[in-house]
Amino acid sequence: MVRIDLNCDMGESFGRYTIGADEQIITSITSANIACGFHAGDPETMRKTVRLALDHSVSIGAHPGLDDLKGFGRRTMSITSAEVYDIVVYQIGALHGFVLAEGAVLKHVKPHGALYNMAAVKKELAEAIAEAIYKINPELILYGLAGSELIKAGDKFGLKTANEVFADRTYQRDGTLTPRHQEDALIKDENTAIAQVIKMVLDQKVITQSGHEVPITADTICIHGDGEHSVEFAKKINRALQDNGIEVKGL
Amino acid sequence: MVRIDLNCDMGESFGRYTIGADEQIITSITSANIACGFHAGDPETMRKTVRLALDHSVSIGAHPGLDDLKGFGRRTMSITSAEVYDIVVYQIGALHGFVLAEGAVLKHVKPHGALYNMAAVKKELAEAIAEAIYKINPELILYGLAGSELIKAGDKFGLKTANEVFADRTYQRDGTLTPRHQEDALIKDENTAIAQVIKMVLDQKVITQSGHEVPITADTICIHGDGEHSVEFAKKINRALQDNGIEVKGL
Amino acid sequence: MVRIDLNCDMGESFGRYTIGADEQIITSITSANIACGFHAGDPETMRKTVRLALDHSVSIGAHPGLDDLKGFGRRTMSITSAEVYDIVVYQIGALHGFVLAEGAVLKHVKPHGALYNMAAVKKELAEAIAEAIYKINPELILYGLAGSELIKAGDKFGLKTANEVFADRTYQRDGTLTPRHQEDALIKDENTAIAQVIKMVLDQKVITQSGHEVPITADTICIHGDGEHSVEFAKKINRALQDNGIEVKGL
Amino acid sequence: MVRIDLNCDMGESFGRYTIGADEQIITSITSANIACGFHAGDPETMRKTVRLALDHSVSIGAHPGLDDLKGFGRRTMSITSAEVYDIVVYQIGALHGFVLAEGAVLKHVKPHGALYNMAAVKKELAEAIAEAIYKINPELILYGLAGSELIKAGDKFGLKTANEVFADRTYQRDGTLTPRHQEDALIKDENTAIAQVIKMVLDQKVITQSGHEVPITADTICIHGDGEHSVEFAKKINRALQDNGIEVKGL
Repeated sequence: MVRIDLNCDMGESFGRYTIGADEQIITSITSANIACGFHAGDPETMRKTVRLALDHSVSIGAHPGLDDLKGFGRRTMSITSAEVYDIVVYQIGALHGFVLAEGAVLKHVKPHGALYNMAAVKKELAEAIAEAIYKINPELILYGLAGSELIKAGDKFGLKTANEVFADRTYQRDGTLTPRHQEDALIKDENTAIAQVIKMVLDQKVITQSGHEVPITADTICIHGDGEHSVEFAKKINRALQDNGIEVKGL
Repeated sequence: MVRIDLNCDMGESFGRYTIGADEQIITSITSANIACGFHAGDPETMRKTVRLALDHSVSIGAHPGLDDLKGFGRRTMSITSAEVYDIVVYQIGALHGFVLAEGAVLKHVKPHGALYNMAAVKKELAEAIAEAIYKINPELILYGLAGSELIKAGDKFGLKTANEVFADRTYQRDGTLTPRHQEDALIKDENTAIAQVIKMVLDQKVITQSGHEVPITADTICIHGDGEHSVEFAKKINRALQDNGIEVKGL
Repeated sequence: MVRIDLNCDMGESFGRYTIGADEQIITSITSANIACGFHAGDPETMRKTVRLALDHSVSIGAHPGLDDLKGFGRRTMSITSAEVYDIVVYQIGALHGFVLAEGAVLKHVKPHGALYNMAAVKKELAEAIAEAIYKINPELILYGLAGSELIKAGDKFGLKTANEVFADRTYQRDGTLTPRHQEDALIKDENTAIAQVIKMVLDQKVITQSGHEVPITADTICIHGDGEHSVEFAKKINRALQDNGIEVKGL
Repeated sequence: MVRIDLNCDMGESFGRYTIGADEQIITSITSANIACGFHAGDPETMRKTVRLALDHSVSIGAHPGLDDLKGFGRRTMSITSAEVYDIVVYQIGALHGFVLAEGAVLKHVKPHGALYNMAAVKKELAEAIAEAIYKINPELILYGLAGSELIKAGDKFGLKTANEVFADRTYQRDGTLTPRHQEDALIKDENTAIAQVIKMVLDQKVITQSGHEVPITADTICIHGDGEHSVEFAKKINRALQDNGIEVKGL
């Protein structure tokens, strides 16, 4: 039976500030990427989110980001690979503290925002992330953009990797995402998005915005947790996958 | 043979800012309390300090503090026991990340500054710290002010504890430290300080500033790492202990 | 004609995080206390909030707080009067930058949260705030709890002061607020709250929870901006005041 | 009489952390660029540094940087011109608070580190800085790399500008600095550095590392405050300028 993982960024609230409908979306996903206090999240939120994931038998992952709360970790920074290594070790460790305290298991690591995007194309940064993960625990699964430098870096270090695909983004002929600033970067129609996802999972192929069919590896689908209709869409995509005979299950 | 541990706060530099003569003082101590990024320290400093301790076979401990870099974790805050639990889990976890990455072992936890002082007298906060440690790893040793609520909380959770004494502080009749704002709080003469330490270690007694001899438990001595003569004094105290037939060794 | 000012804390969003219905509540108030980036707020939010106040001819005030974003400035800290002076000068200055850039006028200063509460009872901290304001601009109006040390400190420095009262809090026989942890601290019935406010404005008296009538000075009423019904209640209180022949106007 | 300004970055300490020999170097300079709490500095340090400059009749300027204490504002970030405008207004305002409180005058603004470097080449960011300054106070002098986009942006907004040159950096044929990563970027010999400065001031020309003489505008010289020999070198350069009949004076 074909199977797929549904992952979602979680625990991105901070102090009195709330983002994301974590408690509602948790029922539709199989892996939670939990913010670690740099781009978002705080110790209290981390503890609560680890417990929330445990309560719903959702796999727990660390979601390290750049040290930029004001920019939500989305602003690219000129950061060395040594700095990347250090901030990733720190953040995985911090989340791991809560995981240990709850008697749970840390399953995966998915970098956030600008760190994710930089690691998708910069080999040195990608390898710094892979090394940080490997040295903490070689059993951890590295989540990265399908086919990116980050996935290659994980392979190089012998890590299990998860190629991530997007329901609501269009793809280009070389298998990369259409940049956000282009008009046709986003798929706004939910049914089109779901059809794309099912094709990626069943056929491991995607039809580019230019109409070509190209191969893509889909191990996990990114579910957004903070949009207006995100809860509804998460439910819908989960149901559609199962209706198409796909098992929705953590890695 | 009577033995004693010498501990020192380390890794308190931040970014371009440097504090402490870590590389020099490391040769005179047996346990390093490494700052975890809240009151001081940053990921790079943590990695380097873990390696420094490893290179010198010095025991590695986490040194969590309040989230107050500007005040160096020395300003008391009205913080709940749940908040204390969360920030301690976070910080121990973060340091543990570097310890794991270096294939080392985390041995102990010593709270910093205002957190240490509050936990010495407030039972609820002390127990929050002890619980955080216990839930991460019940083998970790809890360092606290000799005879304080923090030590009692460690005992309650079944943790191994280390009663900390000070060479350069005077004691009161009830065995507590003379408050810093009092004139005779500090022992400025090095030989007097060393004599006090040796008596505390050998006899488990201290002579108060009022001239009485009171019992005290001394498992570890706090060595200051950032004063003008701290490197020299650390060497001197280490030598004096050995000259008096005391083994200087980690716990 | 009797008149009263309605003030509300504003600009407390941060980065991607949103708090408060500023754009809706602005139409019901006469003075905006704008967060300055320490307990909440950021430069972008400050610029936008200054413009919002200008657009609605609402008086602009600085709302300085403790440097504790995680605790939203609500956690008491042991802070010296010199530290208070410095953080207040800094924050007033920062907001004043945006006020100057927009060609507007800074009218008042109201401390936030724990800083407000500490300054209500600690003379030294209150005078540090008053001095900071006086030295930046002696024309600024100091907002503080009615009859508190903060108001007295403002008087001492020759500042114009605004005694603040609350619609939804009960008062004690000595004219102070009933502490929040007491059962009858909050007035939950809107009509009772409005009646209390109108009495305070018209009679400069309040009936305590023990049934006594005590004098109170009411120059400005605190309107909450972030509760569920806050927008509705702000409208209601504004209307009720006018219906009772009270002019709602900035100081 | 030919004259020149000597400027130095100051007030870059933070909390318990100290950087720079401000109290010694202040006697050799004519303009102080004071950090504003983003890349370095804190409210207490700002107050003290403003007073230090006042005591020595040194011109006071704001030294705004990126919001990156960990990286000391030296890490390039992808930041919009709106964000640049906002952080510059905020930081100038904050310093202005202390200037007002001391009854002093704010004379200039010099961006720091990555912000300075980005503004030297990116027109949009340069204009955002110039606009921020202009809207706060059009009398403020904008300091920027000689001949850079930042100087052009200042000209465009009608600001008085100060072309900054460096004693210890080599120049390229197009008048720009040799990038730091190149071997010959730094002038390590003090006498060569001083000779370069005197030529730049007297002839408004510089000899590039390729041996060509190119024109350069020199209104102010950057003095480093945190190197090992910085205090001595500052004295030496000040004396050498005067010995060559150049008046050392603020702008």
